[in-house]
Amino acid sequence: MGALTLADTHVAAPADLCVQPIARVGDPLSAVDTPALVLDLDAFEDNLRTMQVLAERHGVELRPHAKAHRCPEISLRQLALGAVGICCQKVTEVIPFIAAGIRNIHISNEVVGAQKLALLARLAKQAQITVCVDDARAAQELSDAMLAEKASVGVLVEIDVGQKRCGVQSPEELVALAQLVERLPQVCFAGIQAYHGGLQHKRSLEQRQKSWDKAVKLIRKHLQALEQAGIACPVVTGGGTGTAAFDVKSDVFTEIQAGTYAFMDTDYGGIDWDDTLAFRHSLFLLATVMSAPSPDRAVLDVGLKSTTAESGMPGLVGYEGVRCVAVNDEHSMLSIDEGAQGPRLGDKVRLIPGHCDPTFNLHDCVVAMRGDRVEAVWPISARGMSR
Amino acid sequence: MGALTLADTHVAAPADLCVQPIARVGDPLSAVDTPALVLDLDAFEDNLRTMQVLAERHGVELRPHAKAHRCPEISLRQLALGAVGICCQKVTEVIPFIAAGIRNIHISNEVVGAQKLALLARLAKQAQITVCVDDARAAQELSDAMLAEKASVGVLVEIDVGQKRCGVQSPEELVALAQLVERLPQVCFAGIQAYHGGLQHKRSLEQRQKSWDKAVKLIRKHLQALEQAGIACPVVTGGGTGTAAFDVKSDVFTEIQAGTYAFMDTDYGGIDWDDTLAFRHSLFLLATVMSAPSPDRAVLDVGLKSTTAESGMPGLVGYEGVRCVAVNDEHSMLSIDEGAQGPRLGDKVRLIPGHCDPTFNLHDCVVAMRGDRVEAVWPISARGMSR
Repeated sequence: MGALTLADTHVAAPADLCVQPIARVGDPLSAVDTPALVLDLDAFEDNLRTMQVLAERHGVELRPHAKAHRCPEISLRQLALGAVGICCQKVTEVIPFIAAGIRNIHISNEVVGAQKLALLARLAKQAQITVCVDDARAAQELSDAMLAEKASVGVLVEIDVGQKRCGVQSPEELVALAQLVERLPQVCFAGIQAYHGGLQHKRSLEQRQKSWDKAVKLIRKHLQALEQAGIACPVVTGGGTGTAAFDVKSDVFTEIQAGTYAFMDTDYGGIDWDDTLAFRHSLFLLATVMSAPSPDRAVLDVGLKSTTAESGMPGLVGYEGVRCVAVNDEHSMLSIDEGAQGPRLGDKVRLIPGHCDPTFNLHDCVVAMRGDRVEAVWPISARGMSR
Repeated sequence: MGALTLADTHVAAPADLCVQPIARVGDPLSAVDTPALVLDLDAFEDNLRTMQVLAERHGVELRPHAKAHRCPEISLRQLALGAVGICCQKVTEVIPFIAAGIRNIHISNEVVGAQKLALLARLAKQAQITVCVDDARAAQELSDAMLAEKASVGVLVEIDVGQKRCGVQSPEELVALAQLVERLPQVCFAGIQAYHGGLQHKRSLEQRQKSWDKAVKLIRKHLQALEQAGIACPVVTGGGTGTAAFDVKSDVFTEIQAGTYAFMDTDYGGIDWDDTLAFRHSLFLLATVMSAPSPDRAVLDVGLKSTTAESGMPGLVGYEGVRCVAVNDEHSMLSIDEGAQGPRLGDKVRLIPGHCDPTFNLHDCVVAMRGDRVEAVWPISARGMSR
């Protein structure tokens, strides 16, 4: 393919090739470059307090999920308010959170593969880590990896409560796996994980409660099987933003893993909420109108490389009769009703992301705003850490 | 929100907190960690040659789009084969390509906003840059920004040929804008951009040809208007992978902007192709089966943080009766037909991404394979550069 390679042609970037920071502390929102992910700190802090108070009132631990944001600064604020620890979803994702001083981390997922297990063992010497297991061979390999590093981890056996994804398929499988884990060196059975992502997003509160009741019945069956086998189960982890109001009142969960509550998105914003819980939208995409070629439309400079569209369109804030109708690779389309006043060329607008988790993962930092003033720019240090 | 901040708690990451490289040169595919983006170099190089030969045979320039991959090593190989330059879509995206020594770059998009224009002006002193404009005030602001830096750029007026996104809406608007650009200092009218993303993906070859004919008719009208106004139009840029076979034979395009042809994805793989063009799938997601709790399903360790789902499901390679049926945040679900043999726990499998552009943007590097051997690991240097 020819002799030209990057090594041959690379030139040191002169100062002119440096990109300016997306925002500076003290800037107003209008000075933030776009596309940007911006966090309304007042709403964010309200959300953190609302969930922490809810958990404490019912004597349940809150272990907020860091997969939602991948930003250590956010986890530190949740811990400062009383969260017991955090959840991560991937073993590499854990690294920046340990580097930030966080020492109590549950990996709410199965970790499979020699490289990942070796990393997990090294990390387990730096922090108190638990991890999910749903297979006997995987448990054995986890134990082997820990032994090789003289490390140890807690194991939560994942049970399938209707999500039909990971997890053991029956109370009998749970008991057998828990017993195996208890026999293996360097791993100890710490409890179960019972997470059902699908029911978090059911729109009707009644439907959500009904499906949740079914899941909880199944969790109880598993707990009874453990009890009959004489196996203590100190931790039952699961739950989420959509079911938090039920989770805390159940007698099964010892801790809940909610993540989105801190930010919200159009997906969670679109489900019915109990009056007792009122999470506010704190997370926004800042975009610029880069083209306005006809009165019925405007084109924004955000696309699939700054947000995702699989959970629906982002919601436009502050305009009547104007909606986001398409998200392309680098553009989003606003449709402007006849007679409505859309944003003009060069205007900056705010959008509510359709789905906060994959949106955070597309940004290197989040711009934390106090009112109209940039208070901080927080690195999303675990962005891209999906191994 | 309490006194605990990252600055207070940050500890230097010890060696144990370092993540291992995703792959090492010489490794077999089985040793590559997952999720990984892997490139089959033989298929990739075939694709590059096929498109370059097609363009040269018809006397049209090839200006491959870098938004598809954001990886300078890939652009360098396209240039080594004869490409005239590259396209970028965002002004920050240009930076790593200039740093890699590339000096002929078309920004196939409108650039609006003071920060972006200031950066563009600085970059225009490092490379020969053209940029799209579709608005008089935007043209004025572009000229002002160039003047401030004593830089200059070529302007391609974007025309809307049916995409209904950016672009002037009539030949009259084109002529007026071209005349304005010719009067403004530090910018010069270089031609037009006529891109229609939507018709690239029309499934039926006949439908695609029909819509393309309509678009080309519109381009001709615009060219006639320029001619009648006595304005030379040296460049007509546009086209793409889906219409390349028509684009090169038209008498309107002086260059084509195809990008996906180098990689393909299930979206482009699913449209009908003329026999004369046969692009091969060269881009794959490597994933590990992280859970296989029942015979009818397997769970992979790739999700929306490693690929996107808005263009359909990724395609699984090499298994009959097994399909990818869901992509969650960090998991993908394989459905295994009764009697079919799915992959087992710990197995690594290859998926064809649904849409290559946003998938590249989720990865820090692409693992370039020669057969079963890692030949290089190329940084996706413009990942996340969406401003």
